[in-house]
Amino acid sequence: MFKINNEYLKLPGSYLFSTIGKKVAAYTEKHPQEKIIRLGIGDVTLPLAPAVIESMHKAVDEMGEAATFKGYAPDLGYEFLRNAIAKQDYRMRGADIEIDEIFISDGAKSDSGNIGDIFARDNKIAVCDPVYPVYVDTNAMAGRAGDYDAKTGRWTDIIYMPCTAETDFAPELPEQTPDMIYLCFPNNPTGATITKSELQKWVDYAREKGAVIIYDAAYEAYISEDDVPHTIYECEGAKECAIEIRSFSKNAGFTGTRLGFTVVPKALKSGDVMLNSLWARRHGTKFNGAPYIIQRAGEAIYSEEGKAQTKEQVAYYMNNAKVIREGLADAGYSVSGGVNAPYIWLKTPDNMTSWEFFDYLLEQAHVVGTPGAGFGPHGEGYFRLTAFGSYENTVEAIARIRKM
Amino acid sequence: MFKINNEYLKLPGSYLFSTIGKKVAAYTEKHPQEKIIRLGIGDVTLPLAPAVIESMHKAVDEMGEAATFKGYAPDLGYEFLRNAIAKQDYRMRGADIEIDEIFISDGAKSDSGNIGDIFARDNKIAVCDPVYPVYVDTNAMAGRAGDYDAKTGRWTDIIYMPCTAETDFAPELPEQTPDMIYLCFPNNPTGATITKSELQKWVDYAREKGAVIIYDAAYEAYISEDDVPHTIYECEGAKECAIEIRSFSKNAGFTGTRLGFTVVPKALKSGDVMLNSLWARRHGTKFNGAPYIIQRAGEAIYSEEGKAQTKEQVAYYMNNAKVIREGLADAGYSVSGGVNAPYIWLKTPDNMTSWEFFDYLLEQAHVVGTPGAGFGPHGEGYFRLTAFGSYENTVEAIARIRKM
Repeated sequence: MFKINNEYLKLPGSYLFSTIGKKVAAYTEKHPQEKIIRLGIGDVTLPLAPAVIESMHKAVDEMGEAATFKGYAPDLGYEFLRNAIAKQDYRMRGADIEIDEIFISDGAKSDSGNIGDIFARDNKIAVCDPVYPVYVDTNAMAGRAGDYDAKTGRWTDIIYMPCTAETDFAPELPEQTPDMIYLCFPNNPTGATITKSELQKWVDYAREKGAVIIYDAAYEAYISEDDVPHTIYECEGAKECAIEIRSFSKNAGFTGTRLGFTVVPKALKSGDVMLNSLWARRHGTKFNGAPYIIQRAGEAIYSEEGKAQTKEQVAYYMNNAKVIREGLADAGYSVSGGVNAPYIWLKTPDNMTSWEFFDYLLEQAHVVGTPGAGFGPHGEGYFRLTAFGSYENTVEAIARIRKM
Repeated sequence: MFKINNEYLKLPGSYLFSTIGKKVAAYTEKHPQEKIIRLGIGDVTLPLAPAVIESMHKAVDEMGEAATFKGYAPDLGYEFLRNAIAKQDYRMRGADIEIDEIFISDGAKSDSGNIGDIFARDNKIAVCDPVYPVYVDTNAMAGRAGDYDAKTGRWTDIIYMPCTAETDFAPELPEQTPDMIYLCFPNNPTGATITKSELQKWVDYAREKGAVIIYDAAYEAYISEDDVPHTIYECEGAKECAIEIRSFSKNAGFTGTRLGFTVVPKALKSGDVMLNSLWARRHGTKFNGAPYIIQRAGEAIYSEEGKAQTKEQVAYYMNNAKVIREGLADAGYSVSGGVNAPYIWLKTPDNMTSWEFFDYLLEQAHVVGTPGAGFGPHGEGYFRLTAFGSYENTVEAIARIRKM
């Protein structure tokens, strides 16, 4: 008799954004005349850059001709893309990453879940609280989280690192020693980030404890301030303790195009075993590459035109972030984030719970945001708005919120 | 101190096709003047069908305009594609599969590996021998295979079902009772298949034992004979015991385009728990959809033009299969497969081992095939050739082999 993975049954409710989707659908059905503005899910709205479109048309044509048709891609991804990444994302930032340390994938979400495969079940993980739910849920599925306590909203075997207003929403080194540490800077959901010297402390800590850092840098393109590291490999010794996950979803609007990559340095070892070899084995056995057309789309981001065009997109969203941040602050809300990240983190007014504020905002302003509690217990009392809407919608949403 | 998944260390050598790639590269470097013909890896060579190319150009343009831009896809995949699949792959074959039982993915390889996530570690798996290596390797990674015995080429905890000439390369019901049964028809690597009444016996057996069948139907489009089932759901009761994995790699040449799907019927349960819900949870948490452009490419396969054009591609490859099968038989080789599948399975001559024959063929005819031993101990003494080359190369390869 076959047996299912019972860990799945411990997962509370459904995935956060499914719940939001259902709530919004129910509201829309009841009030079809209301124009809903969605500043909830971190999905982009600007079309793909012309350089990317041009590159994809060319690649589509190549796929239609026998002489240029492409079948299975190389296991790690095409070198044209890995070369561009190694040079522009790493070597130009002083981080010496080789192309066989870079693994092209279908996105950061897949990688942040799948990376757990190469680790034993009995690793103690540490996550920020609040946190992007995928880190927690995928570890729970793998049996690393213990049991879910509905009263506290926490898993028994996970180390939570509170990110509160007192610490500018950055985590502090945990008291209990973890084996695996998930960090995300610029942060989703709080929009917070840390300086290079602060990140260096985490790298030093991980090396001292023999822990591995899973570093999610999906929002790197939104960094606007100096001294905020663009990659963890700017830190001394990070290649010996950190895996970095990157995405094209937010810097180039690839949420529906699907492309990302993960860096597993060869210096990262467990005894004699290179984690690079383990991930290469997983990549070659359980994945068959991102589509050729999409890898060409990724390459175009690194061209001069592509860089200029995607930079404009990021600037557009960051202008939205400014509209939200300044508009809400001016209206008396307590806000953070939105400076090095497309997320604005606000304190719910009048001691509302975050789901109460979700409903309130949906009903009063017809604006959809994300309840902080969906990201963990310390997200309670907070609310996330994203800068990924159109400028017009963003301005209108803030005007509506100010009128509530 | 973090701990790696030690199961990875038990995996013997590297992935079969990486080894072949290295051998061929080494040969090419030594003999740059020889024209190598590759009939090894199951990669296609014909360009994508015009209907698919047209659909992708249109989708690329949509991604370049704000009004038609697409961000994150629905969790299960776009309905336009799932509707086409439900209707044309299932309802038209008399199998009543609903669209929320269909999960669009980036390919059958990912799905056949990832499906293990929703099952407990302590399930006993049964596989054919020879077998597509991904089923075995991914179960080994998950700790379900026990230990690898290099002497026998077998894992201690796996039930092997020999597929030999005596049974026309079909498996027989195993003596030891499995919890999970991997079946692939038409078969990779042997090209064998079974009739609907034979498959019904497997379905009845699985239901009697409470086992689940993971049914890989990636080569369905190559079925040419009547009474060979196109989907396992043609069998009575299959929805209560079987998951079906499908691919667009071989019927439409999507090896480098990446698209597939998996059917998890809602009637398939463990106690009260629907496996459909578990897979939906995994799909929503550890995957973020196939690219919009690629899902539109998939839809085009189901249009009238798309069907006609991809049918022609399949016919082209099946003509190659005939060239190989008949040419080798005429030359005195003992061959099977190639009638309902793009694979020809031949007995190595003169009691050569399959790797000896690999080297012999590479050196004497400059033709690359796949050693049967790479697919399991009962593959020893056999060799796989694929029909996915060009017609000209296929004819030349057979001519060269005949001259050896």
